[in-house]
Amino acid sequence: MRYEELTIEGRNAVLEAFRSGKTIDKLFVLDGCQDGPVRSIVREAKKHDTIITYVAKERLDQLSETKKHQGVLAFAAAYEYAQVEDMLRAAEEKNEAPFLILLDNMEDPHNLGAVIRTANLAGAHGVIIPKRRAVGLTATVAKTSAGALNYTPVAKVTNLSQTIKELKEKGMWFVCADMDGTTMYELDLKGPIGLVIGSEGEGVSKLVKENCDFTASIPMAGEIDSLNASVAAGVLAYEIVRQRL
Amino acid sequence: MRYEELTIEGRNAVLEAFRSGKTIDKLFVLDGCQDGPVRSIVREAKKHDTIITYVAKERLDQLSETKKHQGVLAFAAAYEYAQVEDMLRAAEEKNEAPFLILLDNMEDPHNLGAVIRTANLAGAHGVIIPKRRAVGLTATVAKTSAGALNYTPVAKVTNLSQTIKELKEKGMWFVCADMDGTTMYELDLKGPIGLVIGSEGEGVSKLVKENCDFTASIPMAGEIDSLNASVAAGVLAYEIVRQRL
Repeated sequence: MRYEELTIEGRNAVLEAFRSGKTIDKLFVLDGCQDGPVRSIVREAKKHDTIITYVAKERLDQLSETKKHQGVLAFAAAYEYAQVEDMLRAAEEKNEAPFLILLDNMEDPHNLGAVIRTANLAGAHGVIIPKRRAVGLTATVAKTSAGALNYTPVAKVTNLSQTIKELKEKGMWFVCADMDGTTMYELDLKGPIGLVIGSEGEGVSKLVKENCDFTASIPMAGEIDSLNASVAAGVLAYEIVRQRL
Repeated sequence: MRYEELTIEGRNAVLEAFRSGKTIDKLFVLDGCQDGPVRSIVREAKKHDTIITYVAKERLDQLSETKKHQGVLAFAAAYEYAQVEDMLRAAEEKNEAPFLILLDNMEDPHNLGAVIRTANLAGAHGVIIPKRRAVGLTATVAKTSAGALNYTPVAKVTNLSQTIKELKEKGMWFVCADMDGTTMYELDLKGPIGLVIGSEGEGVSKLVKENCDFTASIPMAGEIDSLNASVAAGVLAYEIVRQRL
């Protein structure tokens, strides 16, 4: 993986970024701007499932580094994304049962960075995040991953449920973190496994949960609702490590 | 615990705060300011082991909310600190073996908040932090603790090694997180226990480590050095929970 520029500004630059296949995490467009070039950019963005936000000129000026945004500004991924197939191949090459961590709409870049760090040390073969409603591989994520982003591949998929279905056909099992699940110590987590962690606050979405084979809970003794999402991911990932040892 | 004001400004207010026994996390003094009242404040601060930072007028003006700092400004703890004895009493009342989490110089408020959250849910009876070189109970810590600070007591001690020695005399065991330790699954962590977690980067300091009964390591498969400190605390705390179940 190599580090890339973060902010892309101006019509030609943004359109070129889309056409060259660069992963754009977010596109900002000047509200009310409807001319030909801008419409082409919006069309490209929709084709790539990029989140589009329409903003006032003041907001664009604020985000702009060059002050020459021409009504469009894009955030590109700081790192290149990997493919899910690469992760499965890496597991196979190491002669290990695949172990993936899937994040359903995690929004905090510090948490995403911490999870990539955990994935690296727990021996997971990759992290999968959805394209919509989730943080991408920003500079903050890269920093909080403490270098793990250079080793542990991250894939961005259009539809997490669909990816789970496809991986189940390849023999993987999926366990979803949920307060109402079976205590993690009572589950068999040794096979080819995908661990699904939800967003802070909302947990794993209904559709994704329905596609999982079982739900695992972390025993909770205290008064509050839930662990920090990256801590929960760490505790569950290490229960998988313990069972695999 | 109750929420308190965060910034205290002006000579009388700061001196009064010290004398009333309020916990001051940090004191800022105008560089070169040496008159009587300021010297009294500095003397009080030293008596209470408060960190003193000498700064330029511009920095003080920037920190000041009232713009009437008179050369001194203090950060008070956002929450009141508890006593270690209260934690032991709470364990006794619940008929549980004491379980404490000690943080050796954790500097990141998000990590401290996440650890307090973990302590609450893992059923720990309290969190102990040192007075020097560590973050206190700031508003950020309160926020990232997700309410846990209202239930899980936090004590601030002058000397972590000394506190460990005193608690060992009361029958507690101390396990220190360290990469070179025994794999955590091979240790018996069931008795009255204190879990010691080091700072990001530096780990547990030498003196504190020497006072612990054993060192526990988390198995690590990847390329990078260490887990995020709050994730490491979570994984180890839940290994204690698993063994106690």
